[in-house]
Amino acid sequence: MTGTLYGLGIGPGDPDLITLKALKLLQAAPVLAYPALEDGDSLARAIIAPHLTTPKIEIAIRIPMTVERAPAQTVYDAAAEEIGKHLDQGQDVAVLCEGDPFFYGSFMYLFGRIAEHFPVEVVPGVSSLTACATALQSPLSARNDILTVLPAPLPSDILAARLRDTDSAAIMKVGRHFERVRDLISELGLTDNARYIERATMAAQKILPLADVPADAAPYFSMILIHKRGQAWK
Amino acid sequence: MTGTLYGLGIGPGDPDLITLKALKLLQAAPVLAYPALEDGDSLARAIIAPHLTTPKIEIAIRIPMTVERAPAQTVYDAAAEEIGKHLDQGQDVAVLCEGDPFFYGSFMYLFGRIAEHFPVEVVPGVSSLTACATALQSPLSARNDILTVLPAPLPSDILAARLRDTDSAAIMKVGRHFERVRDLISELGLTDNARYIERATMAAQKILPLADVPADAAPYFSMILIHKRGQAWK
Repeated sequence: MTGTLYGLGIGPGDPDLITLKALKLLQAAPVLAYPALEDGDSLARAIIAPHLTTPKIEIAIRIPMTVERAPAQTVYDAAAEEIGKHLDQGQDVAVLCEGDPFFYGSFMYLFGRIAEHFPVEVVPGVSSLTACATALQSPLSARNDILTVLPAPLPSDILAARLRDTDSAAIMKVGRHFERVRDLISELGLTDNARYIERATMAAQKILPLADVPADAAPYFSMILIHKRGQAWK
Repeated sequence: MTGTLYGLGIGPGDPDLITLKALKLLQAAPVLAYPALEDGDSLARAIIAPHLTTPKIEIAIRIPMTVERAPAQTVYDAAAEEIGKHLDQGQDVAVLCEGDPFFYGSFMYLFGRIAEHFPVEVVPGVSSLTACATALQSPLSARNDILTVLPAPLPSDILAARLRDTDSAAIMKVGRHFERVRDLISELGLTDNARYIERATMAAQKILPLADVPADAAPYFSMILIHKRGQAWK
């Protein structure tokens, strides 16, 4: 009997935004794995810390912060091998995934390496997309709205084209692209329809008018929501 | 002291996919409100039934199934008035929202009517979007993918244009539009990249190859996911 790999969506940051299903699987698994910075800090581990009632074997997957993909691929190869050893011994392994495992998550790299060899179950989580909308008290989409999710690192001409062709948009991973994206939104005449939020549902959550966000201060976990009807609920 | 209106995302169907936060607020609220069919059946009420430990005052919001919006608006006016009476008396009211309250949800109609008069807190939930992707074991989006959410009732030329300009797509509310959407996906050469699922995470969940879905059998709660890289995690 081999173990099962559980990809657990743990939600956007507030520990109470984990689902009952993920919580039960988390507490039952003898082995935990999670992404961490190279110095060892792990946001995912911090989010679920209040729910850890028993000691576990822990595997920190230390992702190098480079733009090249090759080093990260080596890290995922090694992590998949280490996780595989536990699964081989019949131990279930729970992988912590911020937000939802399959919504812009790094879990897919482990999934791609492990799913052919071992049973895998993926548990969806509250994504940053809906967490930002509820924190902003701003409906994302309704009725027959087209909703487009755009990573901010995309080139400006692509962002502009996609913003023109949608009713509602979420621009993710704003971070160091903030100034360029703010200018673009202004050129498109959408400033009054845009709302900025960082670290949604975490203790450090901040909501600011686009004009008030200081230059070079937007963190990676920041998002801009745009709805062309402005207040979609009216 | 007035009460607070809580818009609670209760997740896509599996009762264990509710968050701890929504569960606590649900169990604490003296008054529950939820959408229901005209005959009284409520999917939202059924999803949370296992978590109801004490009797509550219940308000079923019976939404007429018409395409015209006017009758539904009258129903929301009446529901907002009834809910407002409880809030005025200092009673908190929890509104059950399938999936997430602000992701194609009807909660925004109550929100728009009540938020100007009473405190409102919205709790995000697991949306059908990520629930379908995890049930299909198919990553929605990664890295700098553009993800487009498209309601199937949109005209075919709009659906086709938006499918051409995206990396990944979720076509929602497929239902009676299934045949037209299946033909469109075939014309765009995307059939091998498309996956069909209905009633994700519910007991009646079904996953079928697009070709095997019988004509006129797709329910309203069905979705087609498309990723142009096919298996995005490779």
